[in-house]
Amino acid sequence: MQNEYEIMHIDTDIIEETDIKEEITTLLKERNFSQLKSIISDMNPFDIALIMEELPKEKIAIFFRILPKDLAAETFVEIDTDMQEELIHTFSDVELREVFTELYLDDTVDILEELPAGVVKRILKNTDRETRHIINELLQYPEDSAGSIMTTEYVRLNSSLTVADAIAVIRRSGVDKETIYTCYVTDNNRKVMGIVTARMLLTSSPDKVIEEIMETSVIVAKTTDDRESVVTALQKYDFVALPVVDDENRLVGIVTIDDAIDVLQEEATEDIEKMAAITPTEKPYLKMSAWGLFLSRIPWLLLLMISATFTGMIITGFEASLASQAVLIAFIPMLMGTGGNSGSQSSVTVIRALSLDELGLGDIFRVVWKEIRTAILCGGCLALACFIKIWLVDRMLLNNPEITIMVDMVICISLFITVLSAKIVGAILPMLAQAVKLDPAVMASPFITSIVDVLSLIVYFKVATSVLGI
Amino acid sequence: MQNEYEIMHIDTDIIEETDIKEEITTLLKERNFSQLKSIISDMNPFDIALIMEELPKEKIAIFFRILPKDLAAETFVEIDTDMQEELIHTFSDVELREVFTELYLDDTVDILEELPAGVVKRILKNTDRETRHIINELLQYPEDSAGSIMTTEYVRLNSSLTVADAIAVIRRSGVDKETIYTCYVTDNNRKVMGIVTARMLLTSSPDKVIEEIMETSVIVAKTTDDRESVVTALQKYDFVALPVVDDENRLVGIVTIDDAIDVLQEEATEDIEKMAAITPTEKPYLKMSAWGLFLSRIPWLLLLMISATFTGMIITGFEASLASQAVLIAFIPMLMGTGGNSGSQSSVTVIRALSLDELGLGDIFRVVWKEIRTAILCGGCLALACFIKIWLVDRMLLNNPEITIMVDMVICISLFITVLSAKIVGAILPMLAQAVKLDPAVMASPFITSIVDVLSLIVYFKVATSVLGI
Repeated sequence: MQNEYEIMHIDTDIIEETDIKEEITTLLKERNFSQLKSIISDMNPFDIALIMEELPKEKIAIFFRILPKDLAAETFVEIDTDMQEELIHTFSDVELREVFTELYLDDTVDILEELPAGVVKRILKNTDRETRHIINELLQYPEDSAGSIMTTEYVRLNSSLTVADAIAVIRRSGVDKETIYTCYVTDNNRKVMGIVTARMLLTSSPDKVIEEIMETSVIVAKTTDDRESVVTALQKYDFVALPVVDDENRLVGIVTIDDAIDVLQEEATEDIEKMAAITPTEKPYLKMSAWGLFLSRIPWLLLLMISATFTGMIITGFEASLASQAVLIAFIPMLMGTGGNSGSQSSVTVIRALSLDELGLGDIFRVVWKEIRTAILCGGCLALACFIKIWLVDRMLLNNPEITIMVDMVICISLFITVLSAKIVGAILPMLAQAVKLDPAVMASPFITSIVDVLSLIVYFKVATSVLGI
Repeated sequence: MQNEYEIMHIDTDIIEETDIKEEITTLLKERNFSQLKSIISDMNPFDIALIMEELPKEKIAIFFRILPKDLAAETFVEIDTDMQEELIHTFSDVELREVFTELYLDDTVDILEELPAGVVKRILKNTDRETRHIINELLQYPEDSAGSIMTTEYVRLNSSLTVADAIAVIRRSGVDKETIYTCYVTDNNRKVMGIVTARMLLTSSPDKVIEEIMETSVIVAKTTDDRESVVTALQKYDFVALPVVDDENRLVGIVTIDDAIDVLQEEATEDIEKMAAITPTEKPYLKMSAWGLFLSRIPWLLLLMISATFTGMIITGFEASLASQAVLIAFIPMLMGTGGNSGSQSSVTVIRALSLDELGLGDIFRVVWKEIRTAILCGGCLALACFIKIWLVDRMLLNNPEITIMVDMVICISLFITVLSAKIVGAILPMLAQAVKLDPAVMASPFITSIVDVLSLIVYFKVATSVLGI
């Protein structure tokens, strides 16, 4: 027998580059469900979800009912919350049970967390007592904890089984488990004794006893650990799953690498958003309303705008001096901009290193010392370039008589001091934030820039008044 | 028999929280190698690497020789390039062969890419002809391609095997393969026909034929694909490995999820660095010299400083008007800052959405329309807040007579227009960069800020001259 096989390239956009959407629409219109079923049952849940998003609203429920049960459940995980909610409203209780029984519990919990309370209630009413109990427990873990991303569906083995027995256990119960590639050996109190990977089972002789082959030094996470540290551990030890235990070291769940990779992306996005002074949201950009975007952005803009009041006050304070040397005004934006950029570079580098666990609080002096040396190099280079540029361009090319050697020096000395202080502030603030358990990511560009703006103006005017005697 | 087992929590810092470092140093001094060996053979390569970094230089080679062969190889992957190079210099040719035979080929290639040519030559001289051939081929793939992160050590199965046969094949050859959890079914020309997961094998009856159980719709990457798109595919389809094929669809390697997760971290770090106007480097922060940091930062600082020349020219051009209304100067930093922050928010959001594949070029009008509405909300709110603040604080509290209703209005109208244009520019530029195949990440805060600085000054002075008639 020769199966027909189909190779698809990762960059194939299933909707753009194939005529599958048209084909499906036509088949739906003709109500040719058997043909439709045979086409979609070969497809990936992710791609099916993409197609569902393109279908007219009234066709979605019909289309979803054509999917084989397991594929329906997997697809349900991939579609967005709004569509999930709409589908649930069209489900009978039986259908609801069918979909949710097929789901892994961690996916169920992820979905429930986003749905309105009424819908959640209806779903829970349609699960059996034991599952409801587990779901309720999972729902109670704090949002960013290991408990919130773990699944309770793992393979548990007894240490006295043989390899052949263990494989039989997996064959019997493995279908419903999120991963069978790492199995957990526990004692009667559910305490972790060791781990056995599918690789160990497949490469050991069938009559060996689990206790002999299991790996006995196990790295575990606690349910209350930050989910980010779970992901970091999975990554640094190259595991495909990590066991999660309660305070008594009893195994309560596992975190698998496919969930970890999602967390990693989400956390990186969150960090990036915080660095740009945006309140992080979990929704993809195109799903956000303008109002939602406004709400996530305006608090920070207001805060930063108000904090810019100080720069205004400083300038007003030096108005008399500026009036006598109006040429100085023209260089304010360059000074503040370069200072801000220098500070952002340092703060962002330090924030990222902190978040990747490359840096700890104990490194603060090494960091500051490194930044001081870097700042002297950058500041020196910039000051020199600036000095030459002002003389050649502003003085000689644009023929501005107000620019004297002294004015040029005032600008460049200020630039040097600004860069130096910007880099020090940029490196120290994220570490201080970490020390007081704040998220270092908020100490990024916008925040640093506001501080550096004030610093650079003070430096500039102090240098100007003392050098030029104004 | 009862093995002794050891549970370690993920946050345990092996060096800080245990006295293992002292213990190891003492054992090394006493040359008690058997005791030492029994302690470290239970440890993870990652933790052993941490300990090696803390050891005195002259002890490192001795310590490394105590490790069992497979653990030595795994640890060698985890230590940094400098230490790898030093160790290689102490290796005899036999030792060199021992370490590199144990390594997976993709790890070997990663290591070779960082080492100086002379060392690479010596390593290649000590591998057999076939391996050398494969390594040379892998080394030729472009740095960010799928080919550069794939491994050639995967399990290949014949479609006519039974499940029991396939398990036997894995038992025989699986030890040297990077993953046995996804096996690839190919025809005589190495063309991919399907995939079989270890889960399918373990949950199917042993006498079934592979052809009957294999998954025949396979998603593949090409060797020349960007490594980021491979990672995205692994993530969206929840795979543990992805096959990589050449132009004739012949299987040449696989990318496994543990490598993908590293790529993901690296790419996020690169994006963040580019967004902060830093040339990305692969070295961790503490390993970078001040000179290295300087080199990665100075080109952008210089470029941005020179581009700030325009702001100076604009201010100089309006010097006369500013002299008659000196109060306007005080609000320049606030205007430029708020504009820059507004623009950064939009650009960073769009850049991240592009990099997560949530946005395509076709969405540009939806994006701009969304940003315009958000900008009207943000701009309106900021302008109102600013108007009230200036009147209450600057006029009434600080008693500045220069601030009239008209001046206040000039500032707030300029603020509104600046925010609006900043958000539009911030959203469009990353998408244009993507369109002309530039990395959108360079269109982040520093770059946007430079453009918005110029825009805001022009807007401010135009509004001021027309409203105040100066």
